[in-house]
Parts: sequence; structure tokens; C-alpha cells
Amino acid sequence: MARIGIIGSEGRMGLAIAEVLATGEHECAGGVDRGHDPADVAGHADALVDFSAPDALAENLASARRAGVPILIGTTGLADEHHAALDEAANGIPVLQTGNTSLGVTLLAHLVKEAAARLGPEWDIEVLEMHHRMKVDAPSGTALLLGEAAAEARGVDLAENTESGRDGHIGKRAEGAIGFAALRGGTVAGEHSVIFAGEQERITLAHSAENRSIFARGAVRGAAWLIGKPPGRYTMQDVLGL
Amino acid sequence: MARIGIIGSEGRMGLAIAEVLATGEHECAGGVDRGHDPADVAGHADALVDFSAPDALAENLASARRAGVPILIGTTGLADEHHAALDEAANGIPVLQTGNTSLGVTLLAHLVKEAAARLGPEWDIEVLEMHHRMKVDAPSGTALLLGEAAAEARGVDLAENTESGRDGHIGKRAEGAIGFAALRGGTVAGEHSVIFAGEQERITLAHSAENRSIFARGAVRGAAWLIGKPPGRYTMQDVLGL
Amino acid sequence: MARIGIIGSEGRMGLAIAEVLATGEHECAGGVDRGHDPADVAGHADALVDFSAPDALAENLASARRAGVPILIGTTGLADEHHAALDEAANGIPVLQTGNTSLGVTLLAHLVKEAAARLGPEWDIEVLEMHHRMKVDAPSGTALLLGEAAAEARGVDLAENTESGRDGHIGKRAEGAIGFAALRGGTVAGEHSVIFAGEQERITLAHSAENRSIFARGAVRGAAWLIGKPPGRYTMQDVLGL
Amino acid sequence: MARIGIIGSEGRMGLAIAEVLATGEHECAGGVDRGHDPADVAGHADALVDFSAPDALAENLASARRAGVPILIGTTGLADEHHAALDEAANGIPVLQTGNTSLGVTLLAHLVKEAAARLGPEWDIEVLEMHHRMKVDAPSGTALLLGEAAAEARGVDLAENTESGRDGHIGKRAEGAIGFAALRGGTVAGEHSVIFAGEQERITLAHSAENRSIFARGAVRGAAWLIGKPPGRYTMQDVLGL
Repeated sequence: MARIGIIGSEGRMGLAIAEVLATGEHECAGGVDRGHDPADVAGHADALVDFSAPDALAENLASARRAGVPILIGTTGLADEHHAALDEAANGIPVLQTGNTSLGVTLLAHLVKEAAARLGPEWDIEVLEMHHRMKVDAPSGTALLLGEAAAEARGVDLAENTESGRDGHIGKRAEGAIGFAALRGGTVAGEHSVIFAGEQERITLAHSAENRSIFARGAVRGAAWLIGKPPGRYTMQDVLGL
Repeated sequence: MARIGIIGSEGRMGLAIAEVLATGEHECAGGVDRGHDPADVAGHADALVDFSAPDALAENLASARRAGVPILIGTTGLADEHHAALDEAANGIPVLQTGNTSLGVTLLAHLVKEAAARLGPEWDIEVLEMHHRMKVDAPSGTALLLGEAAAEARGVDLAENTESGRDGHIGKRAEGAIGFAALRGGTVAGEHSVIFAGEQERITLAHSAENRSIFARGAVRGAAWLIGKPPGRYTMQDVLGL
Repeated sequence: MARIGIIGSEGRMGLAIAEVLATGEHECAGGVDRGHDPADVAGHADALVDFSAPDALAENLASARRAGVPILIGTTGLADEHHAALDEAANGIPVLQTGNTSLGVTLLAHLVKEAAARLGPEWDIEVLEMHHRMKVDAPSGTALLLGEAAAEARGVDLAENTESGRDGHIGKRAEGAIGFAALRGGTVAGEHSVIFAGEQERITLAHSAENRSIFARGAVRGAAWLIGKPPGRYTMQDVLGL
Repeated sequence: MARIGIIGSEGRMGLAIAEVLATGEHECAGGVDRGHDPADVAGHADALVDFSAPDALAENLASARRAGVPILIGTTGLADEHHAALDEAANGIPVLQTGNTSLGVTLLAHLVKEAAARLGPEWDIEVLEMHHRMKVDAPSGTALLLGEAAAEARGVDLAENTESGRDGHIGKRAEGAIGFAALRGGTVAGEHSVIFAGEQERITLAHSAENRSIFARGAVRGAAWLIGKPPGRYTMQDVLGL
């Protein structure tokens, strides 16, 4: 059982992580939010999760390093300077930064890479996602992550090969394109499918989330996995042994 | 067993109908194509199917009427003048004009209407379709037909309530919108889903075609059904007793 | 806004209904559980929901009738004597008894009936369901309810036409059979599909629940709908205007 | 362009392979069926496909070896003696024996292995398949192949961990079980899904065939791939570079 400290404990993800810890195999080492010193919780934790804000990153990393505990960063909106700070911190402690803490999505991206690498270019790739009615952007970040995995495996540039939001007289599908389509409605937590459509057959690789707790659960598992690892930068792929 | 005559016998649909007749319960009364007199086949048929061209419609209707046989028209691209000619012919013989001869799609549109009428506006409606890589327009005609069925049942104007081809920062879903998304790839003959996404639950009504023979099969069934009916205009809904 | 009283307030459904009332458009008129007098809550309510136990039914109905408030009964395991008591109570107040309070499932059953009635016997009917790993019976009650809807529409006896749990050398599909298949795993709240498989095409009518709150939500909507109705027996179909 | 010779040319698969060759990138080097000498076609071919019968295997292998051409064996119902003959022939020529020539299914089995190896035992595995109404056995051979891939990756014995054909009061899902469910109806060529159901999330890996031509196409691609390879036993996995 590991003691997990939460930075950004009053945010949506912080609260979800506290809930996961309250019922799971690990325990909560306490939480801090804006205006409080992250060192308070770092001193009592085996690992930290940070879902706060980019401008708090430097201090959070410093606290983790002083306490010698690994840290998982789920904060979004990071710039180059933040990545430099992550690299620097990784000289002293294990650091895992990710935009998606779901283990299921992490595995799906890996399987998409495998499939895209094995199937020839005569298999068309489409990414479909559905989210709740309040989501303001399309395609979802996860859909783009999956498209990027496919593009990488095929050795092509995603931006130059994207067909997103088809509508009207669009002409036939471009060779080698990666297509995106977005559905919105109700309270859907998140569903993603990557479709490989070939001659008379189709392979579909899909993930569906019943609710957003999977991100909290994955963050806890990722943080616990970091404990005892050598200093360095890690990814969610590493957590799954990919 | 009915004798079905084919006008436009060398076209894609004409050939598919001949194939269905070769193995099914009805028989082929012969076929004609551009340059030949439709009266030749009308005289030997119990019913006609016409998948030729708008400019041949007037002569085809005249031949059917002179022979006193019902006619199913699947020709696309009809203008107001053609519909007037159909109305006029329907004074003498049974006439069924349709843009979609699939019985499955016809039933699906009916079920969509039922669902849209019963479920309140808090259920978001989305239409998803997938077709082969050569299709040049989106959404498909059938997707629009399904969206139209939903809009009609809700008493709203489809054009003013469409969200099609979401891409980029689109903002949250508009209340009462009917969304459309299009997938393209491989050799997919045609798949359509209408999703009703409510609070924590979803209803999905879907149709999938293994190949395009279903349109030929539906045309034959529709034409055979017309035999013995009183003169008038009919729809595929009538064939299903809807 | 209606005041809804809960009988069986400490049970799983009772608690879920209280949660729905805490955030929804109606309010909670209080709750009672085993050992307390249902008259206490009946006196303050505009309608009652009862998810307690068969042996408490008679007293619950009597309390509702004395208070002159409608009652929705979701208690399972009712015998003939209980149904007789429901009929008797319905002489004085509106009574709605149901094994499934989901509005989505109620609509789905209606659509299945429509489809089964319109599509000829050459369309095979299959019912697929998936539930969480703890469910102990198969097919689910809802799957059977959907199969029953299909059988009724076709005028056949479900028990005599069921193919459930195919395994081994089973021979080809019996004509007119209604098939059932059950998947179990994870924390799936409940998914049901009714598939009509015809010649080269398929229609699928599906419902999925993100969690079990939909049953509580439907119970509240059903109870509120009963207010002001004449005495008599009602169904969830009536709530949807089917 | 390779010249492919067909042994068993009048069987269902032999005819389908001839059709694929008639329109594809490779050409047909001729075919033989029962009662004719396979040496006739072996002498003119760059590779052979054999979809005949077990009792013809020895002679077919001998002809291939004398002609020095690789051979792909899709014949089913092979016994130990046949596998010994395959091993012996593989000393002189490339030999690929398989029960499933679909490249899509081959890749799917590989992805299932990957997923099963990475996801812990708290992810329940279910295999769902749908086939046309004439299929007499359940689960399908391909479903079992996919279940076997999952079992192998988890290091468990499939036979001892199978839950197939759930029906009645079955109790909760056994830990570590691999579940199977079979749907039958219409003219469905073949659909398979492997579902990994975890805590609040699900991964689904699926394959669907529009018709049976994919097996012929895969057989041709497999045979062409064998040309120029060193003598030995090969699998469809090798063709995909897995």
C-alpha cells in the first residue's frame, strides 16, 4: 500500500483521485491546493500526483525533489519551459507527465500502432469519438492521440493527412488519409473507435469509459508504479510495460 | 409469381434487379434501355421498375399507363415537372416513387420517427453513417432521410437544426440540434445509426447493408406489392404497411 | 414540482430515488422502511414509489388508498395474490406496477414490437445483453422482456421459440426462433440489443445504461406522471404515451 | 505477379480463389481436383494452394516438393500423421498450414494476445461472434482461436476457463474465465469481438467480414508471400511480419 499525495486537491481530478484512494488499495497522504505549500504533503507521501496549474509546476517539482518522492504530472497546457523543468527534475526523481492517464486508452494507442504498422496502406484508417453535449472541441484530444499513433506507425505526418468533419461534396477519400468524426450528446463520458477498413473486411479497436473515474484510477496506478524506480522521465506506456 | 419488367436494364440497378429476379420468387418480364421502346416490355409485365433517367420518365409513364401496369420509379434527380407527371400518371395506375428502395431503411426511418416523437428534447439526436472510400458526398442521402424523419417528428426544421462535420473549437452542442457524422473507408456498402443520447442512457437504431443487392430486392418487392392496387401514389412505407 | 414519498427508502433503489430527488425537479416527501408505517409518508406525498417487499404490498396499497395518492410499484417477485391486490387498489387510486422503470427500455420494447410486426419471419431475431460480472442469471429480465415484445408482435409463444446459450454442435438456426446471448464482465450497468438479421441487411435496436440511476429517474417520472390521473392500472408505456 | 496453382479447384474455396486471381494482381496457373494429378499444375506454378481433403495431402505435398514450389495448406480435419507429413515436406519447400487464411483475423489474434498480456486479470475477457443462420456449431472456430490467443497470453488453460452459452441461474462470473457468446441470423458472413471489461472501462477488438472472399484473398497473399522463402514451416503470422 502506497501513500499518494495530491497537489490540486480541490480540482475536479484532485477530488476524483481522493475518492479512488478512499476505496482502493492505496491511501491518501493528504492534499494541497493553491495557496498552500506542496512540501507539506510531499513529506508524508510515497508518491505525488499533480493536477494543478502550469504556473505551480516549478514549485511542485522542487518540493517533490527535496522530499525525494516520484511525481506524476497530469496538468495540461504545459509550454516548452515546463518540459525543460520536467527534464531537469527527472535528474533527481522519477517523473511521469501525460495528457491522458487512462490505462485503457494507453493500451489502445499501442494496439493502434501495431495494427497500422502491419496493415498496408490499402486499409483506410478512421477515428470516431463520442462525448457528452457540453464538450466544446472536436476531435477530442484522445482521438488526436490515437490518430497520431496511427500516423507515426505509418511514417506519415498527421496534419497533412487528416480528413476531419466531412460535410458536403467532399470528393472520394484521399489515399492514406486518417479520418476523424465526432458525435456529441447526452452524458457520454467518452468513447473512441479506430477503424481499419480494408477490402471486404474491417478491424475496429475501441475504448469506452463509463465515467471519468478511470482517469483518477490510472493516475493512482501510475503514481504507485513510479515508487522505487530510478530517476528519469516515464510515460503511461511504461506503466503498462509497453 | 409476378412478371417484373425492367426499364434501365443495363444500369447498375437494372442489372442488380435482373440478378435478384433470376434467383427469387418473381420472374423477369424483360428489360429495355435507352434507345428502345418501353412499351415492348410493358406489354408483357405485371409491374415495371424504372431506374433510367429523368428525361425518359414521361415516355416510361405513358407506356405503363397504356399497358395498365403499375410502376415503381427509382430514378433520381427528379424535378417538379417530373413529380407533376407522376401525379398525373397516378390517376390511371399505381405509382411508387422513392429515393431509397431498402425495406430495412424504410422501417428504420419509421422507428426513428416513433422514437423522436416519444423522447423529449432532452434526448440529443445524432446520425452516423459509414460508406466505402469512393463515396463523394457527406452526409449520405439516407442519413439525411433519417435526420429528416427525426426533425419531422419533433416538428422542427432540419436545415436550421443541423450540426454536421464538427471540427475545431465548435462550442457545446446546440439544444435541439440533429448532428451528422460521416466515416469513409474500404468497401463498406452502407451503415447508418441514429443515436438518442439522454441522461445516463442511450438508444441506438441502426441499419447495415452487406451489399447493394438490398436495394434491388426492395425494388422488386415494392413493384410486386403494387400489383392489383388502385391507381394512386404510393410509398415504400405503404409496402411495409406503416 | 411534485412531492414523492419513498417506501423502501433504505434499499438500493430507495436510496437511488432519494438521490435523484435531491437534484431533480421534484422533491422528496420523506421515506419509510421495514418496521415503520407507510401512512406517515403517504400523508405528505403527492405520489408514492414502492420498492420494498411483496409481503409489505398490502399495507402499502392500503396507506396509499387511504391518503388518496397514486402509487408506482417496482417491487419484484409478485405472485397472483399481489396482482389481485393491485387490481383492487386500482379501483380507488392510480396504480402503476412494472419490473423495469427505465423509459429508454420501455421505448425500446415498443420499437421492437413495431419492427417484429412489420418484418416478415425471414428476418431472424436475436437478443444480446451485457452486464457486470456479479450478475447471476442469464438472459437478463430486460432481455426476456424484449424477447417477449418480439414474440407477441409475431404471434408466437416465446418459451417454445427460444434459442438461448448456444454452445456445441447446435445445428442450424430454427425457423422463427428468438435467440438470446449473454455477455458478462467488468462493471457494465446494462446493455441490450435486439438484432433483426435479414437477407444481406440487418436492423439493430439497442439501449445502453451508463449506470443504474436511470431506473430511479424513470420511477420518479412515472410516479409524477400518475398525479391527477383517474384511478386504474397503468404501465410505463402509458407514461411515454405509447 | 505470381502464378498460383489451385488444388481442390472445384471446392467452395478453390472457386473463390480462382475468382480472386481473375481480378487481382496474381494469376491462376491452373487447377486440379480429385481424380487428377496435382503434378500437372505444380509444374506451371510459382506457388500452390491446397483446399482439398486430408487423404490427398501426401500426394499434394509430394508434387509440390518434386516441382520445388511452396505450398499453402488450408485443408481442415488434419490428424497427427498429416502434420508429420507437413513437417517432412518442410525440409524441402516452404509450407504454410492454417485453419484461417484471413489476414484481418490473424492480426486480431495478435492484438488480443498483446492486450491480454498487458491487462491484469481484473479485466474480464469475453468473445462474441455472429454468423449466418445456417452455421451448425458454436462458438465458431475463429472465436475459439481468439479465446486461445487470450488464454495463451494469460498463461491459462482455455478449456478449464471457458464460460460458453450462459443460460439460466449461472452464478456470478468465474474469476479468470474467458466467456463465449454466439449470435445466429440472416446472411452474416462473420463478425467477432473480443471484449476486455475492466473497472468502469472497456476495450473491444473486433473484426467483421463483408463476405467470405477475404479467406480466398488471404490464401493468395499467403501463397505469394511464400515464394522465395527458405524451406520450413510458416504461419499466417509470418505473412504479416508478426
